[in-house]
This record gives sequence, structure tokens and C-alpha cells, in this order.
Amino acid sequence: MKKVAVIMGSDSDLPIVEKCILELKRYGIPTEVHVYSAHRTPDEAIGFAKAAEENGFGVIISAAGKAAHLGGVLAANTVLPVIGIPIKASALEGVDALLSTVQMPPGIPVASLAIDGAKNAAIFAAEILAVSDPELNKKLWEERRKAHDNVIEKDRAVSEKYREE
Amino acid sequence: MKKVAVIMGSDSDLPIVEKCILELKRYGIPTEVHVYSAHRTPDEAIGFAKAAEENGFGVIISAAGKAAHLGGVLAANTVLPVIGIPIKASALEGVDALLSTVQMPPGIPVASLAIDGAKNAAIFAAEILAVSDPELNKKLWEERRKAHDNVIEKDRAVSEKYREE
Amino acid sequence: MKKVAVIMGSDSDLPIVEKCILELKRYGIPTEVHVYSAHRTPDEAIGFAKAAEENGFGVIISAAGKAAHLGGVLAANTVLPVIGIPIKASALEGVDALLSTVQMPPGIPVASLAIDGAKNAAIFAAEILAVSDPELNKKLWEERRKAHDNVIEKDRAVSEKYREE
Amino acid sequence: MKKVAVIMGSDSDLPIVEKCILELKRYGIPTEVHVYSAHRTPDEAIGFAKAAEENGFGVIISAAGKAAHLGGVLAANTVLPVIGIPIKASALEGVDALLSTVQMPPGIPVASLAIDGAKNAAIFAAEILAVSDPELNKKLWEERRKAHDNVIEKDRAVSEKYREE
Amino acid sequence: MKKVAVIMGSDSDLPIVEKCILELKRYGIPTEVHVYSAHRTPDEAIGFAKAAEENGFGVIISAAGKAAHLGGVLAANTVLPVIGIPIKASALEGVDALLSTVQMPPGIPVASLAIDGAKNAAIFAAEILAVSDPELNKKLWEERRKAHDNVIEKDRAVSEKYREE
Amino acid sequence: MKKVAVIMGSDSDLPIVEKCILELKRYGIPTEVHVYSAHRTPDEAIGFAKAAEENGFGVIISAAGKAAHLGGVLAANTVLPVIGIPIKASALEGVDALLSTVQMPPGIPVASLAIDGAKNAAIFAAEILAVSDPELNKKLWEERRKAHDNVIEKDRAVSEKYREE
Amino acid sequence: MKKVAVIMGSDSDLPIVEKCILELKRYGIPTEVHVYSAHRTPDEAIGFAKAAEENGFGVIISAAGKAAHLGGVLAANTVLPVIGIPIKASALEGVDALLSTVQMPPGIPVASLAIDGAKNAAIFAAEILAVSDPELNKKLWEERRKAHDNVIEKDRAVSEKYREE
Amino acid sequence: MKKVAVIMGSDSDLPIVEKCILELKRYGIPTEVHVYSAHRTPDEAIGFAKAAEENGFGVIISAAGKAAHLGGVLAANTVLPVIGIPIKASALEGVDALLSTVQMPPGIPVASLAIDGAKNAAIFAAEILAVSDPELNKKLWEERRKAHDNVIEKDRAVSEKYREE
Repeated sequence: MKKVAVIMGSDSDLPIVEKCILELKRYGIPTEVHVYSAHRTPDEAIGFAKAAEENGFGVIISAAGKAAHLGGVLAANTVLPVIGIPIKASALEGVDALLSTVQMPPGIPVASLAIDGAKNAAIFAAEILAVSDPELNKKLWEERRKAHDNVIEKDRAVSEKYREE
Repeated sequence: MKKVAVIMGSDSDLPIVEKCILELKRYGIPTEVHVYSAHRTPDEAIGFAKAAEENGFGVIISAAGKAAHLGGVLAANTVLPVIGIPIKASALEGVDALLSTVQMPPGIPVASLAIDGAKNAAIFAAEILAVSDPELNKKLWEERRKAHDNVIEKDRAVSEKYREE
Repeated sequence: MKKVAVIMGSDSDLPIVEKCILELKRYGIPTEVHVYSAHRTPDEAIGFAKAAEENGFGVIISAAGKAAHLGGVLAANTVLPVIGIPIKASALEGVDALLSTVQMPPGIPVASLAIDGAKNAAIFAAEILAVSDPELNKKLWEERRKAHDNVIEKDRAVSEKYREE
Repeated sequence: MKKVAVIMGSDSDLPIVEKCILELKRYGIPTEVHVYSAHRTPDEAIGFAKAAEENGFGVIISAAGKAAHLGGVLAANTVLPVIGIPIKASALEGVDALLSTVQMPPGIPVASLAIDGAKNAAIFAAEILAVSDPELNKKLWEERRKAHDNVIEKDRAVSEKYREE
Repeated sequence: MKKVAVIMGSDSDLPIVEKCILELKRYGIPTEVHVYSAHRTPDEAIGFAKAAEENGFGVIISAAGKAAHLGGVLAANTVLPVIGIPIKASALEGVDALLSTVQMPPGIPVASLAIDGAKNAAIFAAEILAVSDPELNKKLWEERRKAHDNVIEKDRAVSEKYREE
Repeated sequence: MKKVAVIMGSDSDLPIVEKCILELKRYGIPTEVHVYSAHRTPDEAIGFAKAAEENGFGVIISAAGKAAHLGGVLAANTVLPVIGIPIKASALEGVDALLSTVQMPPGIPVASLAIDGAKNAAIFAAEILAVSDPELNKKLWEERRKAHDNVIEKDRAVSEKYREE
Repeated sequence: MKKVAVIMGSDSDLPIVEKCILELKRYGIPTEVHVYSAHRTPDEAIGFAKAAEENGFGVIISAAGKAAHLGGVLAANTVLPVIGIPIKASALEGVDALLSTVQMPPGIPVASLAIDGAKNAAIFAAEILAVSDPELNKKLWEERRKAHDNVIEKDRAVSEKYREE
Repeated sequence: MKKVAVIMGSDSDLPIVEKCILELKRYGIPTEVHVYSAHRTPDEAIGFAKAAEENGFGVIISAAGKAAHLGGVLAANTVLPVIGIPIKASALEGVDALLSTVQMPPGIPVASLAIDGAKNAAIFAAEILAVSDPELNKKLWEERRKAHDNVIEKDRAVSEKYREE
């Protein structure tokens, strides 16, 4: 299976990003994690992106806050799908990171998940790899079923609690 | 090659969505286009999503404006990657569609491109399919090179125009 | 009397939604409470909406946060009035849920109360049922009078406190 | 059948509000239309609200722009359901009207539709009256079916247009 | 001297509004304080406004949060200057109250101070009364001088602290 | 009667500001109009504010767009009431001017009207002067009555138009 | 004198950026203009920034719209001051470009002017160079004087026009 | 070397501004710190700006919250580069300060850093002075290298932690 790279712009993003890493592992997806700042380590970020295909990666997940340029910098140097996680890391509640991530100009896409949407970034990466991986597709359906059943159980508890005699 | 579905919530979205369709065709990606409203034709939208895998689709692109629920409704019924194009179709300049698309809760991702980002949605779909399709990967790199050369040419004209003697 | 359904997208919404449930009970309105996620349990949510009329419901209250599609999904499958409570459940302070709820496209309305406006959702549901229920209408006027008197009492205390000799 | 009142804060709102009036007539709902400003004709607005129940109204629709207080002023003087249409009538694209309408404090609800959501306000009023009016309920389902069929037709045309050989 | 009325929509606004009351007292301005809700006690709010001129008031200060209609309701019933204090009392950080207060339509002005700007509302009321009251004008200048001197003192401490040898 | 000064930051604001000037003249208020930029002519703006009291002014109206500092600069140099008109003059639809005007820190108030609220600024200035001018107070009531009657007339026409037989 | 580089992300930004170029020429500042996209021509953008010091540049002005990463990409590769012009080029009225430009994380600054603030970017670049260039400093003061006199003239015309007899 | 002035509008801004002062000292830049309110001590603020050039300053850093006029007031009285730090000091999370700082009208620039971007303001000031100071330029490159190495170290730790066997 192709690997997924999880790149974060600062290790202060790790508490959020870790949810992404753990979710990827839950699907058994080989993962490599890096801290590369688009601004403080541009060469390393670019170098990683340029070599990513060759190094066996299939998807790149980029997590960054504030003026979140990391997704764009990575996407400019690869044609692998780049998924962005806008991190809430400023007075602006992550709106700056969201717009810096999602509003990419035509030609170089970064696909954005929700602010701090680390878990969904992992699932979306899994969905991408599952397009050509029936095993992974099956795991995705299993997780769906579990999530479904979990809600059903919650519904039972809550509807019971407020049931009128 | 797996097909890409382009679903729009209303045929009034077509002027924007057409850029997506044409871009997909430029990459030679087999495409099917539908108008399914999450609210007025929920059964058709859901039915399409449920059968998409089986019908040979690899990616679903969903375009909708205002309270854009279409991407979520499709994603709830498939584990194929669902890409959202928030359409600017209200007084709120597309901010409502962007937030309705990108802020999906954990478990069911929709990956959002920019407001009216139809062309990038197509490219991103191509990038997804190219993960397991070296031919498409090559085409993506070619288009990148053309886009690059196009900017270089523009640079030549503009820098020339303002050159000082 | 017809019943009111209170559907929330996640049991994490319960602390807010409970204010709605208690207010409905204060008016003696028969109430049924459910946790149905538009995305993780779409079939259950839709099934509930489709059967709601037949099952004796008169009004559906939908509470959801982030990209709050639940109201729209319910409204797409019933012509009962659907009232939305946008829940503050993200970095965006509920603005995402508000816009996802209130900006419904023409044809399928969801009527939105304030962000976290659980109590008002209950009162509004009561007002709807009271259109054809003089008893409930009387209770609404009584509650109004109590709310009025409560403010008058507060006014007396505050104006007294700052009275100048 | 109980009547629906459509009150607008200024006759400059009429081009939008007319969509609401026509939609009500399509459902055969007896309608009365007024221009009452919460600020320039407060007594008339309040007088109307106080007498509305007695005068045979079942629902009040309130349309206003900018600092849209009309819905609140009406709701403060009746326990009939008051539906708000925030009108886009300022530099702020209707956001001021939306927040002034939807963010009502606990106790006195106004249920808001989308900015300029005149048609949905009418449908929602119909849904309220239909709770105790099976005939109107049937008409609502008919309109739903027409809206559904209309989308299906659009889908046929669009999917045909982009069909690949 | 004419009196200033301080009307708040809820006694939960008192912690902020008290800064206004104390500031008015510092200027020796006769003040009357009330809790009148535009929605739960509309008659009292309107009655107060209608009688305010006759009862010796020169200025009305209105403090309210969320969909802050109180200023508009008061202004609709008097030609005394009505000053608004938008109270931060919701998920929206007071933006709803600010827009509901400041965006009044032409004809009936409410002049808004900052969100939670209780102290400035008092000073502004003093400035209004001082237009025809030289004694109060003198007090305003004195307070200005004190505020000025206070900053100068702060400057001395801070600039000293960071002075380089 | 004391004079009202109307200061605008740029003569490009005149189309909006003129509504203020005409409204002041309708009330027979002696008015002086100036173009003073807080940034390009700071000395003149400050000089005007410092001398305003002595020169017979009772109220200063300040109109400015973008980072609208003019109101603050004037208010810093006078204790006359300073009223702000935030002008819509940028990509941000006047939100920048509104916040720059209304969010004054404690100590130096500027009271803000709506974005482009030129007419209301004039009425509010009249209300300030009318606190000690019974003649002007009478004119304000007359205009109110006219505005009221104007709405009543509009109501007659509109309610007639949609009357059902 | 050191040169100023004006880099724009797309030649569609030229109508705005030209105001910057012309203003620089008015100050006699040697200028070089380029179209370099952070995403489509990353190597050229980075190469330019890395060589800028050596090539005789003193300041870099970066103009870009949407997710405006250009300023950050340039600043990551030089310690020359990088000035950003957020271009209004999307449904979001330039707010995306503003936040993408101004919200740079600690360590790598980009100093932002207003949305479409091309003229001020040129003046600010001149102010930077003038810190060590008394001749340019003199020109800046001259332009200030002209701008001042221009407002004074406008004031004369406008105040005259509305003078009362 | 020319000095940098750090002016804050209130000593309550000091916890943020101190990061700027310390960063300037790290670069060995002679610094003078002041508390001058644009509104409460306008003469001192203006006097400082007018004399700044003559007193040996090369750059002015202005930090202010809410309706942050300080940068504009300083810039109006000097042609030295004025850098703004919008301080988060209100319900609006610093958006008011950002817009009041960055949206300066053409002619008088203030270059804005991020909300609370105190450290970057210092670095940007250093970059300005370094344009004509090779020693300072060298220090800037050294700090860049340290920042780079710091990220590389973080990357090593993080990538190690999540390495798979």
C-alpha cells in the first residue's frame, strides 16, 4: 500500500494532528510524520513534496495554522492529492487557516477538511487509497457500521431517558 | 479507469460546474453529470451514492450553494471520496456554502475546494485517480508544466513592459 | 395533541437540547427524543422523518452543530414544520451551524432559532401546535405573563438599588 | 382556514416579499399584507399583533432589513408563530437583518428563514397551518412532488448534455 | 439638570451596565435605572420612552444583547437621543447586538458605542447634556485631563522600565 | 442655536454625506461642512476640533471610510459629542469603517450610526441639540409624524393591492 | 539606490498592481516587475527571493489574491522586508488574501497593506529605503505636502458649496 | 544604528508588546518604549512622531487594540515606516484592531503584522534597518538558521516518535 505523509507546520499542532495519525494507524495505513514549516524550513518541505511520489507516498496531509501556506507549498511541488487541516491557532479561531487552505487559486488544488478536522483528514486519505484497494474499502465500511451502531446505541439511551409513561 | 460523478444541487450551478466538467474531459476522465437536490430529490441523491461504487465510480464531486447539504448527503451513503465545490449562490457570497461543506463532523469527510473552485475540483479528482494510474499522473505533470510555462510567458511580457532603460 | 420530536445529531448536544425538552414538558406537550446523525445514521433519520406524520407528530425540532445538515435531511422527507437549533460546537462559535440551518434553498424550509436557542425552539413548537389548540394557547399566554412579571420584579430590585435620594 | 399576515417594514422590501405573497396564494391561503415599520409606526405594528389572534390570523410573517426589529416587536405582542424573513437591504448583505431576526433572546421566539427567503417563509407558514389541515397537507405534498419532478427533468437534460459516447 | 435613563434588557446585563451607572454618578448626573425587556415587557419599555421627555429625561441609554431591539423600541417612541450599548451575551461575541443596535434604518437613529462600551455611553450622555451645561462641560475637561495624566504616568513607568543604559 | 459641523475624510464621501447636510438644513440647523483627512491634514482636523466649542459648535459629525480614524482624532480633541458615519468605501463593505468608528476604547467616545447612515446622523445631531431647544424638539416630532403618515399611506396602497375579494 | 521588486501572483492582478508600479516610479525608485506564482512557478519565485539581496534589491512587494501564499514564500527565502498587497480576487472580497498575508506565524514576517492597497505599498517601500536615503526622505515629505494641499483645496470647494449666507 | 520606537496605546498591551521589545534587544537594536494613547494623549503621540526622525529613530512600531487609531495618528506625522501590531483586546478577537490598522486609505501607509504579532513586528523592523546595515543583515540570517535548525530538531523528535517498525 502507498504511504500517507502527515506534515505539520509546527509541533504545537501535534495535539490536534495526533488524532489524524492514530486514525490512519487504525486503518493500518503506513504513515510517516514530519514537522516542516513552509516558512522556516521551506527547502525541506519542498524537497519532501518533490520526492514524495518516488518515496512511495500516495497522499499528503498538511496541517497548519494562521496564514497556513504549507498545503499550498506542498501542492505546488507534487501532483499527489494534498489534503489540508486548518489548525485553530490564533485569535481568529482558525478562520485564517481555513481560508489560507481552501481558497487555493485554479491549477493547484488543496482539499480542505474542517478546522481542526484531523480525524476526517485521515478517513479521507483512506478513502483515496481505497479507490484502488478493496481491502481498505472493506475496512472503511466496517468503521462506518461501527459509527452507525454507536449512534444507534446513544439514541437508545437518550430516547429511553426522556420516554414518557 | 474509474468514472468521476459530478453532481450539482441545481442546474443554476451549471455555469460554474461546467468548468469542472470540461477540465475532467481534458484529462480524458470518464464523467457522468447529474442534477440531484439533497432536499428536493433526496432518494435519487442517496440512491446514486449507494450505487456509485458498484457502478464504476471512483470519485464523486458535489457542487451546491447556500446551506449546501448535498456533499454530506452523498458522503453519508458511500465511502468513495466526496469532493465539495461550495457555490456562491446567495447574499452571503458563498460563505454559507463553504461552511456547510467544509465543517463536516468527525466520521464522514467531505473535502472542500474554494468557493466556485470548479476547476480545482476536477484536478483534485484527477490526482486521486492518478494515485493508481501512471498515465493520468503523467498528464497531470504535463498540465503542470503548461501552467508553469504560461506564467513564465506572462512574466516575460509584464517584466518587459515595465523594464527601465 | 400531536407530538413533538426532538432530534439531535449527537448526544454531545444534549446539555443544550435538554433545555428544549424540559420546556416542552412544561407545556405538557408529548415529546419523543432521538439521537440521529444525518451522516452516520442517514437511514434512521430519513425513516423517522418519512414516518413522522403517520406516527402522530406535529412538529420536528432538529438540533445539530458544525455543518448542520440534519434539519435539511429531515425537512426533505416530511412536510411537517421542521425547526432548527444551530448548536455551537466548533471553532466557529456556531456560525457554521447557523448558516447550514437557516440558508436552506427555496422549496424546503427549515426555520431557525438562535444559536443554542433550545428554549425558544420549544416555545415556537408550542406556538405552532397552539394555532389549533386553545388550551395550549392559554398556557403560552400564562407563561408570557410570568416572564413579564419576572422582569417587572427584576426592574423593581435594580431600579431601587440605584435610586438616588 | 386561519389567515396568514405578511408584514413588511418598508415597501422597498416588496420585490422580495412578493414571492412570499404569491406562494401563499398558490396554496390558497387567505393572506393579508401590510407595511408596518417597527420604528416609524410602532403603534400600528403592535396593534396589529395584539389583535391578530382575534382577527383570525394563524401565522405572522415579518420581513425587514438592516436592524430588523419588526419580527421581535410583533412576537412580543402575540403568541402566534412569527416567521422572519431577513431582507438584504444594506452594505452588510443581510447579515445584520439575519442576526437581528434569528438571535432572539429566550422567551420570545422568531423563527428565521434564509436571507431573502421569501418563498420558504410562505411554505413554512403553510406547513404550520397544515398541521391541523389535511387538505393543505395534501397540497404541500403535491408541490413537493412537482419540485421533485422538476429536478428530475433538469437532471435528464443536463446528464444527457454531458453524456459521453 | 435633565436626567439620564439607563435601561437594560435583562438584569444579567448589570455587571457591564454598572460601569455606565457609576460613570454617570461620577459626573453628578441624575440617573434612573430600569430593567425593561423589549420583548417580555414591551408596554413598560414603550410607556417609559413615551413619558421620558415629560418626566425630565434628556438622554436614554439602552443596553441589550443578542437581537438587541431595545434601543430601537425606545427610539421609536421618543425624540430624545437614544444611545445603545451592545452587550456581548451570546456565542456571537456581541456582533449580533452591535448590528441590531447600529444598523437602524433611516428615520429613527440609535447611536451605538462599542460592544460592552458602558463607560463611554455614560461619557457620551454627559457630552450631550454638556452642550447646554457649562458646569458639566468643565467636568468633562477635568476627567480628560486626569485620563491624560494617567497615561503620562504609565508612560513614565514603562519607558523607564525598558530604558537602555 | 449652536452649529453642527460635518467633517468628511475625503470629498469622495460627499455623495453619502450630502444626505446628512440636507437633513440638517431641513431642520434649520446652522451647519458648516469640511473635508479634513485625519491622516493627510491632521493639524487642520485637530485644530478644528480644539476650536469647535469656542467657534459655536454643539455637535460634530464625522464621516470616513476604511480605517476610519477621523472620529477618534476629532473626539480626542474636544468634549463635544462626536457622531460617526462609517462610510462604505472599500472591499470590506464598510465593516472596517464601522469597527474603526464604533470600537473606541474607554474614555473617548464616538457614537456610531449605521454604515452610510448619513440621514440618521443628522437626525441624531438634531436630537442632541433639541435636548435644550423646544422649537427643534417640535420639528423632530413633526418629522416623525410625517414619516409615520408616509408609512401608513404605503400600507394602504400595498394592503389594497393584495386584498382578496 | 537599492531596487524594489514588485512580484504579482497572476497577471490578472496587474490593474491593481500598476498603481504600485507608477507610484514607485514617481519617487524615482528603480523597480523590477515580475509575475511569479507561488504555486505554478514555485522555483522561479523562490529563486528570485534567494538572489534578491545579491541582485541589488532592498524591498520586495508581493501582490496576490485568494489563498495568497506568495508573500510567505518570498519571505521564507530572504531577510529583505517583504510587503504584501492582498488582492481582492474572489467571492470573499479579499478577506482570504488579507488573512493569508497578514497572519504570518512568528519568525517570518510579511507586512500587509490594505486590500488592493497598491499605492500605499509603494509609499511604504519608499519609506523603508528613505531610512538611509535623505533625498528620498525629502521627496516623501514633498508628496505629503502635496497630498495635504490637495485636501485643503477640496475642503475650500466643499465648505464653500455648503456655506450658508 | 537608528533607533526603533515601540509605542503602545495602553499599558495593558504590555504583555503582548514585551515580546516585541525583547526581540528587538536580541538583535541589539536600540529601542525606546512609550505608552501614548492616540485619544487620551494625542499631543504627546503626535509630538513624538513629529520629532522621531530628528531624534534618531528609523522605524516606529505601534501597538493598539479595539479601534486602533494609534498607527494612523503616528503615520500622519512622520514619513518613517510605521509598523502596526493589532492587539486582541475586545470581544471581537482583534478583528477591529486589525482592520483599523491595515485598512489605511491611500497616501499614509501603516504596514500591519498579525493580530498580537509582536515578535514579527520586531523582526520586520530589524529587516528594515538591515537594508542599509550588513551587520544586522547577518544577524537576521543567523536567527533564520537557528529557527530552521529548531524545526529540524522538532521534526526529528516527532518523526521518530511515530516511526513504524
